[in-house]
Amino acid sequence: MPRFNPLVETLAAPPIPSVFAWADAYDGRGGAMIDFSQAVPGYPPHPDMLRLLGEYAASRAYTGYGPIEGEAVLRKAYADHLSESYGAALAAGNVHITAGCNQAFICAAMAVAGAGDAVLMTDPYYFNQETTLAMLGIKTRFAACDPKNGFLPDLAALAAGVTPDVRAIALVSPNNPTGAVYPPDMLGAIYDLCVARGIWLILDETYRDFLPAGAGQLHDLFGRKGWEDTLIGLYSFSKSFCIPGHRLGAITAGNAVVTQVAKIMDNLQICPPRSAQAAVATAIPLLAEWREENRREIARRVEALRATMAAAPDWRVGAVGAYFAFIGHPFAGTPSAAVAERLAKEAGILCLPGSYFGPGQEGYLRFAFANADVETIGKLGARLAGFSMDGA
Amino acid sequence: MPRFNPLVETLAAPPIPSVFAWADAYDGRGGAMIDFSQAVPGYPPHPDMLRLLGEYAASRAYTGYGPIEGEAVLRKAYADHLSESYGAALAAGNVHITAGCNQAFICAAMAVAGAGDAVLMTDPYYFNQETTLAMLGIKTRFAACDPKNGFLPDLAALAAGVTPDVRAIALVSPNNPTGAVYPPDMLGAIYDLCVARGIWLILDETYRDFLPAGAGQLHDLFGRKGWEDTLIGLYSFSKSFCIPGHRLGAITAGNAVVTQVAKIMDNLQICPPRSAQAAVATAIPLLAEWREENRREIARRVEALRATMAAAPDWRVGAVGAYFAFIGHPFAGTPSAAVAERLAKEAGILCLPGSYFGPGQEGYLRFAFANADVETIGKLGARLAGFSMDGA
Ligand SMILES: Cc1ncc(COP(=O)(O)O)c(C=O)c1O
Ligand SMILES: Cc1ncc(COP(=O)(O)O)c(C=O)c1O
Repeated sequence: MPRFNPLVETLAAPPIPSVFAWADAYDGRGGAMIDFSQAVPGYPPHPDMLRLLGEYAASRAYTGYGPIEGEAVLRKAYADHLSESYGAALAAGNVHITAGCNQAFICAAMAVAGAGDAVLMTDPYYFNQETTLAMLGIKTRFAACDPKNGFLPDLAALAAGVTPDVRAIALVSPNNPTGAVYPPDMLGAIYDLCVARGIWLILDETYRDFLPAGAGQLHDLFGRKGWEDTLIGLYSFSKSFCIPGHRLGAITAGNAVVTQVAKIMDNLQICPPRSAQAAVATAIPLLAEWREENRREIARRVEALRATMAAAPDWRVGAVGAYFAFIGHPFAGTPSAAVAERLAKEAGILCLPGSYFGPGQEGYLRFAFANADVETIGKLGARLAGFSMDGA
Repeated sequence: MPRFNPLVETLAAPPIPSVFAWADAYDGRGGAMIDFSQAVPGYPPHPDMLRLLGEYAASRAYTGYGPIEGEAVLRKAYADHLSESYGAALAAGNVHITAGCNQAFICAAMAVAGAGDAVLMTDPYYFNQETTLAMLGIKTRFAACDPKNGFLPDLAALAAGVTPDVRAIALVSPNNPTGAVYPPDMLGAIYDLCVARGIWLILDETYRDFLPAGAGQLHDLFGRKGWEDTLIGLYSFSKSFCIPGHRLGAITAGNAVVTQVAKIMDNLQICPPRSAQAAVATAIPLLAEWREENRREIARRVEALRATMAAAPDWRVGAVGAYFAFIGHPFAGTPSAAVAERLAKEAGILCLPGSYFGPGQEGYLRFAFANADVETIGKLGARLAGFSMDGA
């Protein structure tokens, strides 16, 4: 057989499917499986969302090719929503719609870096960002987040990590995998670092809509003068609208970035799926209150997670936030994948090993608690307390 | 501003939007605009297609993340369809669904080549294949197609083009831009060349369903022993089902290739849009006869194109096939973009300049005649005959 691209061949297989295989091996002895594996909302999309998706998909108006940058109605509706949320003046031209936020990331990465360049990330990291860069031959550098500081990034480590080949810092806040919410001041300081060093800041805010309600939660970067020359914002409609299967995300950036991304997207898939874009354009204002209620629901789940962990004192909550908790297991020296596999097969708790998010994270597991309701989350502590790694 | 990736920054802007701008400048003096610019079917999707798209999009069942490789029902339905069409034994595991055939191409290219490797293409070429490779830092080599031989590839030129850094030959048949249909024997010979040289053959058959009806039209490569180690087939559901806005394509390959592509797709967009996949799975058998009728309709349009060109004897039909005609204009020395722009603005004929498909193609224009009905096509000859490049 002719050879494959070694950068792709050496990539690990996507992690989620192998975790599902562990779930299939659980015999139910400890009660129904608690699925904290994938970052999906545990509640259904709003009925109006489904209605809109159906209506637009059945329309001939969206069967042809659409604009590369996305449907004008969605770019406008999303820009208006952003302007209101951030208190900034963002226009449709600042928005490039993508088929999900993974695609938004690869577009942003390709726009600013090529093989041989480097991107600086926080460690632990969202694995798809790491594998995306690796398969493109873009080098990755890491700045460790301090577990003692709730896994927030360390500004000095970031500054030291900006070697001359680094073209961008890539951040995720609220963070996947840790759940840590980077305070606006800290994001501002990292933005200033990027300005000073002449590099891009790629900021993935997929979980933005699950920040606690209230003023002062969001950063002010989109309002800063000249932000277009530094900031590239990423977002996913998957989580907020409960429609990952419809594949929609967005890039928020200056016009020059949007122009570069359009060239990439034309090659990557010509345009994002159209009818779902039209549906989301309508849903952004229509389902505003529903999304606020989900924000409150996620806050209740955060509380339930904190409360239940009191029942498992050997387990440490490293960080907890919008969608995830990053939890230290008590089996020092045991690889996180071994712990996660037995947790799935024997305790019916499905989560991801810390090692999937960085080689230094063997002591941790990621619990995507947003996937379960408050009552289910409440069972976690007792199940963890009763779990042991003894025996075969 | 920090720098962009120079491989992206130096890419030309996507060509289609600029052509639409010419159309907007047409004042209608010669009659309604004849749009031969984009490779889209001029007839609507079947009502059952729209109904299925609407039903599945409104269903909660497809809102979650789906399998990276595509919905099991679609992989199976498409594999069955392929097996019947090619007289080969293809299984669901040989199919990876993508969000369109451009995405299928970038996945195939990345699976087999990285920055610094090379891919050999025919010239003229489908521009998105060229820009895709360019932005990845993959070198492109070209083997010229002979206009005197209906723009079929030249085996000796291809063989000479396989330099040691070439990882794959990329072909499109029926061809975009020329319309040339590569005979099965010729494809077989190119396949043999790839086997002998230990490289991949990436074969884009987006327009396969518009080959003339009857036996012997399709190649036998998927039935050859060990085909999995050489052939990667690409396809688009956009044209055959009239649903480019829903973004669906497919890769047909060995399991080892599918495994590599899944790793890429996980980064590129996690999974293709789901509800449309379910709809197409149903539509493959349901709309078989409708697709056959479209095949006959396209054949009628080919005839109409040939017939109408008799009225414009100064214009030469370089090649004509499934969806496209590649037509030599009579203005020797005038750049094809200048001719195309004036054709749009003054004669109301929208087509693409040959130069978009290769620097040596200034003498030609691409007419995507499938986009117009027989009656409209019939007007082309007279309009071309009446067109001149004189004056301002
Ligand atoms: C931080 C982060 N970015 C991006 C994504 C991808 O989201 P999408 O479904 O929009 O591709 C995810 C999904 O889990 C995520 O956690
Ligand atoms: C040869 C060829 N390949 C691929 C494509 C892209 O098709 P899709 O809409 O499936 O991305 C086209 C579209 O014009 C094409 O002509």
